[in-house]
Amino acid sequence: MRKILVIGAGKSTAVLIKYLQEKSTKENISITIGDISIDNAKKLVGNHPASNAIQLDIFDKNSRQEAIQNADLVISMLPASLHINVAKDCLEFEKNMVTASYVSAEMQALDEAVKAKGLTFMNEIGVDPGIDHMSAMKVIDQIRDKGGKVILFESFTGGLVAPESDNNLWNYKFTWNPRNVVIAGQGGTAKFLQEGTYKYIPYHKLFRRTEFLEVEGYGKFEGYANRDSLKYQSIYGLDNVLTLYRGTIRRVGFSRAWNTFVQLGMTADDYTMENSEHMSYRDFINSFLAYSPTDSVELKLRHYLKIDQDDIMWEKLLELDLFNPNKKVGLVNATPAQILQKILTEKWSLDPDDKDMIVMYHKFGYELNGEKKQIDSTLVSIGENQAHTAMARTVGLPVGMAALRILNKTISKAGVLIPIHKEIYGPILKELEDYDIIFKEKEMPYYGYNPDRLS
Amino acid sequence: MRKILVIGAGKSTAVLIKYLQEKSTKENISITIGDISIDNAKKLVGNHPASNAIQLDIFDKNSRQEAIQNADLVISMLPASLHINVAKDCLEFEKNMVTASYVSAEMQALDEAVKAKGLTFMNEIGVDPGIDHMSAMKVIDQIRDKGGKVILFESFTGGLVAPESDNNLWNYKFTWNPRNVVIAGQGGTAKFLQEGTYKYIPYHKLFRRTEFLEVEGYGKFEGYANRDSLKYQSIYGLDNVLTLYRGTIRRVGFSRAWNTFVQLGMTADDYTMENSEHMSYRDFINSFLAYSPTDSVELKLRHYLKIDQDDIMWEKLLELDLFNPNKKVGLVNATPAQILQKILTEKWSLDPDDKDMIVMYHKFGYELNGEKKQIDSTLVSIGENQAHTAMARTVGLPVGMAALRILNKTISKAGVLIPIHKEIYGPILKELEDYDIIFKEKEMPYYGYNPDRLS
Repeated sequence: MRKILVIGAGKSTAVLIKYLQEKSTKENISITIGDISIDNAKKLVGNHPASNAIQLDIFDKNSRQEAIQNADLVISMLPASLHINVAKDCLEFEKNMVTASYVSAEMQALDEAVKAKGLTFMNEIGVDPGIDHMSAMKVIDQIRDKGGKVILFESFTGGLVAPESDNNLWNYKFTWNPRNVVIAGQGGTAKFLQEGTYKYIPYHKLFRRTEFLEVEGYGKFEGYANRDSLKYQSIYGLDNVLTLYRGTIRRVGFSRAWNTFVQLGMTADDYTMENSEHMSYRDFINSFLAYSPTDSVELKLRHYLKIDQDDIMWEKLLELDLFNPNKKVGLVNATPAQILQKILTEKWSLDPDDKDMIVMYHKFGYELNGEKKQIDSTLVSIGENQAHTAMARTVGLPVGMAALRILNKTISKAGVLIPIHKEIYGPILKELEDYDIIFKEKEMPYYGYNPDRLS
Repeated sequence: MRKILVIGAGKSTAVLIKYLQEKSTKENISITIGDISIDNAKKLVGNHPASNAIQLDIFDKNSRQEAIQNADLVISMLPASLHINVAKDCLEFEKNMVTASYVSAEMQALDEAVKAKGLTFMNEIGVDPGIDHMSAMKVIDQIRDKGGKVILFESFTGGLVAPESDNNLWNYKFTWNPRNVVIAGQGGTAKFLQEGTYKYIPYHKLFRRTEFLEVEGYGKFEGYANRDSLKYQSIYGLDNVLTLYRGTIRRVGFSRAWNTFVQLGMTADDYTMENSEHMSYRDFINSFLAYSPTDSVELKLRHYLKIDQDDIMWEKLLELDLFNPNKKVGLVNATPAQILQKILTEKWSLDPDDKDMIVMYHKFGYELNGEKKQIDSTLVSIGENQAHTAMARTVGLPVGMAALRILNKTISKAGVLIPIHKEIYGPILKELEDYDIIFKEKEMPYYGYNPDRLS
């Protein structure tokens, strides 16, 4: 019997554990779930015979190392910043490891030592990063195998509310960490490539420079640029690409309304507001507007940002109850972003029956035999319920699939890896189809550099 | 004979030296000017008998300490970050010291030791900071002496081009460090108080939230908020004030046009642009605009920022030759702000005969005997020539006046000081009038919180 240790019994672990449990007999594995809360771990164990729960404080070196020594493979579902000590132990005790997180500089620094011991540390094998890498590299490699040259790559991902649960004017609910949504795009100018030219968008314009995307059966979406569009340029082998753009997907109209918050300064996270605890929602908004002895908060805002009273954007603001003088912020020394997050969480939390949705959209432009062509590849994945959300499924399933393949040595490449190699992504993308996580690939005329198809 | 050591023979030192030289016989002083460039120092000495020049590298401890030991008082005209070693030597050798710079945390930390030795380290005694402190505290103290209570304080300063030399559409030229103008307002949200409410303006809205100011004989100006309006609240004794606002003065229309650069992202200083050296001015602008196979840079910009073709703002952009495809940036690994600075310096440098102008505007609202009143206090100071600019005069003269008074012990307060005490600002403001640096104070109806005078 091979032993898998899963550390961290958080949101996306439920699907992973269920997957491993279903495979336990066939694969001859036992699963140990370690969490700081033994109750959380026990919940995931259920009454499955080959699973057991342990209380595990990852800051307690002795118990952490004991658990790792007992395992054949370790899956860390901890927050990204906490992987490193687990990784160092895995290296010491020569255990393979899987995470869904971005490779940190500290993790990357282990690469040589990991290789020297013939170990596999697989990272970025969730949804984004993860399924995005795999599905992109699949098409890029297909194009190259045919002798084509990739000239354009655009890639968009979004975590959204499923159409059947979409009942607010923003067409949006929080399906993951709300804080990341509120501060999205901050910390620097977005940079990307369009037709060989570097383009730059400062944060305060990010939500006014969207691109539209149409997904068959699901209608129109929009994407705004990520900060780091060029991050995987070399890793994907796209050094000579002319257009390279990575973005985040929302329903059309979200960004234009979100821009209201950006313009006012309500997403700032670098200072705390005076008297935030006792401020009303209305006071909060008014802090960002000029003083006037005669005008209402509403009129000042509409005038400042030039919002017509019959603009749907105005209804979106009203829906959030932003102008309420009686609701108190109730957060001590809060930043604007923290206050905004609280206000939004009241309105944008998933109801118990709500389902989430992951949407992914890649465009690949390429030249083949002197002709320009394009392939669009899209994924829509809808959650089953609150525990088995689309987010948890698209993170947990590829993690589990990679773990079993490493155990079985069908993935045997050594080092600190991400899933960009054919022998890794191929079988995993194939198995994901069994779970209804299926990309639709479609040949298109080459629209890439000219999405409006102007002459 | 008392010996004054002046360290640093930069822009604003000429007026200071001339002032001290003119006073040398009457005050029985000799003046030593130390600079890394002996030629710069010699130029300021001229053929004045009681002055001499020395080569002084302030990073060379021995020669620095020797020069300081030889002096009775030290004036540091070095860049602000370089005062601290001079200050520590002054403390060690028990010499009084004067600077025109903001009190740094390191400088403030010397306060107790300076007091213990009965020394005076006078700082912030230039124009801004300096004359602003003195002229403001004069009126604030007047109001208090009458039994009034200050409820509003707004204070604006600007370094501008004099009306007789004002010949571009921006009504602006660089009269001091261009870099500070290009990155003005960055690094955090502007915060101030209006009628008891804290107000916040993010950087990208700063130049759209101006206030108008009218200066008799000089017409209309505008002010945008400084980041640190509350910095001197306690120091000025204004803890219970309702309105507190500090700003920067420009001619009307400057900020609206400057906002173009902010919106595009051309003032960003936190990343370097790809291929900046070989970029044309037109490429530079185009980096911040969407790619289009069919539209011109001009039309893309006008559309993006909604600028009508007959808007004077458009003419302002054309005046800068921003769309020129043949002019090259020529700066390696430059930030947008550095590139913009280069483009502006070509157009906004003072011609040899140009004069500069300092404008200061304070508003004081107060309650006296149940009545609300207001005093406006304004200064306009125009430069004499390129060496004796308004900036150099309003920095150099108060520095010199403070130095002589410390030597003569009419200023004898010990510690790390700024000129907010009546016994300091009173005589200096009086003497500044002999040099035509004169504030006009005017009783006004209390408009303070309602500048448009709406009912």
